[in-house]
Amino acid sequence: MNPVRLDEFKDIASEKDREDPLQHVRSAFGGLDDSLIYLDGNSLGPLPTETKELMRRAVAEEWGGGLIRSWNRGWYGLPERLGNELAPLIGAREGEVCFADSVTVNLFKLAGAILKDQPGRKRIVTDDLNFPSDHYVIESLVELMDQGHRLDRVSSPDGIGMPMEVLAEAIDEETALVTVSHVVFKSGFLYDLTALCAVAHAKGALVLVDLSHSVGAVPIDLEASGADLAVGCSYKYLNGGPGAPAFLYVRKEHQERLVPALAGWFGAKDPFHFTPDYTPVDGIRRFLVGTPPILSMRAVEPGIRLLREAGMAPVRAKSESLSELFLEMREALLADAGFTLASPRSTGLRGSHVSLKHPEAFRINKALIEPVLDRPVIIPDFRVPDNLRIGIAPLYLRHVDLVRAVERLVEIVETREYERFSHEPSAVT
Amino acid sequence: MNPVRLDEFKDIASEKDREDPLQHVRSAFGGLDDSLIYLDGNSLGPLPTETKELMRRAVAEEWGGGLIRSWNRGWYGLPERLGNELAPLIGAREGEVCFADSVTVNLFKLAGAILKDQPGRKRIVTDDLNFPSDHYVIESLVELMDQGHRLDRVSSPDGIGMPMEVLAEAIDEETALVTVSHVVFKSGFLYDLTALCAVAHAKGALVLVDLSHSVGAVPIDLEASGADLAVGCSYKYLNGGPGAPAFLYVRKEHQERLVPALAGWFGAKDPFHFTPDYTPVDGIRRFLVGTPPILSMRAVEPGIRLLREAGMAPVRAKSESLSELFLEMREALLADAGFTLASPRSTGLRGSHVSLKHPEAFRINKALIEPVLDRPVIIPDFRVPDNLRIGIAPLYLRHVDLVRAVERLVEIVETREYERFSHEPSAVT
Repeated sequence: MNPVRLDEFKDIASEKDREDPLQHVRSAFGGLDDSLIYLDGNSLGPLPTETKELMRRAVAEEWGGGLIRSWNRGWYGLPERLGNELAPLIGAREGEVCFADSVTVNLFKLAGAILKDQPGRKRIVTDDLNFPSDHYVIESLVELMDQGHRLDRVSSPDGIGMPMEVLAEAIDEETALVTVSHVVFKSGFLYDLTALCAVAHAKGALVLVDLSHSVGAVPIDLEASGADLAVGCSYKYLNGGPGAPAFLYVRKEHQERLVPALAGWFGAKDPFHFTPDYTPVDGIRRFLVGTPPILSMRAVEPGIRLLREAGMAPVRAKSESLSELFLEMREALLADAGFTLASPRSTGLRGSHVSLKHPEAFRINKALIEPVLDRPVIIPDFRVPDNLRIGIAPLYLRHVDLVRAVERLVEIVETREYERFSHEPSAVT
Repeated sequence: MNPVRLDEFKDIASEKDREDPLQHVRSAFGGLDDSLIYLDGNSLGPLPTETKELMRRAVAEEWGGGLIRSWNRGWYGLPERLGNELAPLIGAREGEVCFADSVTVNLFKLAGAILKDQPGRKRIVTDDLNFPSDHYVIESLVELMDQGHRLDRVSSPDGIGMPMEVLAEAIDEETALVTVSHVVFKSGFLYDLTALCAVAHAKGALVLVDLSHSVGAVPIDLEASGADLAVGCSYKYLNGGPGAPAFLYVRKEHQERLVPALAGWFGAKDPFHFTPDYTPVDGIRRFLVGTPPILSMRAVEPGIRLLREAGMAPVRAKSESLSELFLEMREALLADAGFTLASPRSTGLRGSHVSLKHPEAFRINKALIEPVLDRPVIIPDFRVPDNLRIGIAPLYLRHVDLVRAVERLVEIVETREYERFSHEPSAVT
């Protein structure tokens, strides 16, 4: 490693941190200290300190003290209330978002609703960069319906991103739905949502976008972009907790026409009339199904609030600043250690994580996480076969954290420290 | 009211409480004191004291401290581990139960799997006593598949229960699936599961039973009864918390053949290989879909443990003792105040709640819940149009609580105290 260049980066990073308008937000995450550099906020965001006390109250007072009465004191309306809290972060209007189920189940409900609504169109277009669960659930929907639908996966020419003209070519008048991840889980490639919607709408297809890897990290304007439907998870950049309930968005103009492919009592017009025939309630609530997991759902709000207070423009600006520094360090320091870039180099084509490739990525990841005296524990994540994902979450990450992470990465490779670890994967890698 | 009879019941109740082998279990629910009589454990069970500390750890230590690493430290296997904890309470074998999603979503996954597996059979048989969400979700499945399936609802002759011969008549060789609630949500009617399975199997139909109102209150032996599939919720007698994740059961012999109608990455063979083609994992885990809501799921275990320690035979014995006392008091004291019985009178035909009818049930329910000096707050629940449900949860309810509840019910009617309240329903009733 070039120690002169490293020192230069340290100086640059310190300077940037001093000028960082979001530097105060880090203190809202009490669990993060200098012994840990958390680069996996794109997988599971850390605990906002406020959530701890909120959850204590939710358990002891709302459940323990309020018992069934708490359904009338706020639980019942929680899915929509949280949806309206989130709405400004994704350019949605009041009444267009609610929290429910998982991303996968929400995809099923919404994609099924579209296919039922457009019986003449039999194609669903996605790309091979999309998250596997999104493929699985659409395939299972197509198979269940058994009505001649087909999921077409457009191949990314470079395995990293998707030129709009390549996707556009696959969309035709037979296409009911185009569904992609706004930011690709592996490479971090960022779609231009407005361009995507224009291309789809030109052929009369609707757009259902998965915001899991962009919400809370990238400014999103669903209304302006023309997106028809969206889903997303709240446990990544929204910091809503492990497996936190997902959200769904249905543009107001579509709500009345669409009925979820999977209907349950929480989406019914008068659920407490207990009639055996289903009539969907008006508005976004019809996309609820069963009783929502309240404790998990209660944990979602503080993370959204922190992002609203920070503002998505400063969040994006910091994400770009952190990412640019990291990419410059990759070129100056990591490339010699064998790390290549598996993300788009251009800022405008990238979300808020950066993927590196290295033949020893699996064992390097293990070495980073293993506690070693006088070294920070560093938590990125590994993706098969040779991918190291660096999550750049602007609310709590500092420029100096990235310099320390790079220093450690080079050290692990140069000293072959990773050789202490086996190639054997654990249950979850 | 007959004060002599009331005093007699008080003596009987005190005697029964003194002899109650489960009396010590009540102290495991710290939030219950004499100012409150909770008769809605069939809707939302109270907070086990142990859950408070467990949830503090789950939030602060597992999420806050462990971050993403906690997936490898127990979260990932939690759905199956909890399933195996529950298994002995429902007569399931290891590897036949897992926790996932909501009851409604689980019904969809399992019913859809059956319909796909039995393409020649187009009928699904249920009864009109079943929980509305169960109707809705099967109807939406039938509509989505659009393959000529039909959901037939057998009418209960008395609106309370279902003679087996009436149901049997509706099941034929066209029937793929018979699906009912083991205990009916409104009347508390209890199906004989073994007889039901025999009747269905005689025609080659499979049985999918909803255990929401029986699990934790009634001994269940899925294996011996012959049941093929089951779902159930954990927020009622299992005391797992508001909207706690549901469970599902698939008999081992069916697991390999069935693929969930809704597939996601948590049910895939190698979810961390991130391949776009879905291969279901072996075993019960294939019925998982998206990332489970861990915080809500963490709260489920203490309630199951309490029931396992108590044992289902003593739990049922106490439920019968409490219910019998209550029914005797209805006959001796409540009948004169206008309360009629809307549950089966016979113990063997009843789960663990009792439904009363009263023309003023809605306002009486309000009066019971409203705090009044020198009177306990009493929480049953109201079901349209004139139903008062009395949940008899044996882990924490005492015989004397029921006497006090009856005393208060009579007082509210005799003094017309309920007239203070409006007929206007609140959001959730």
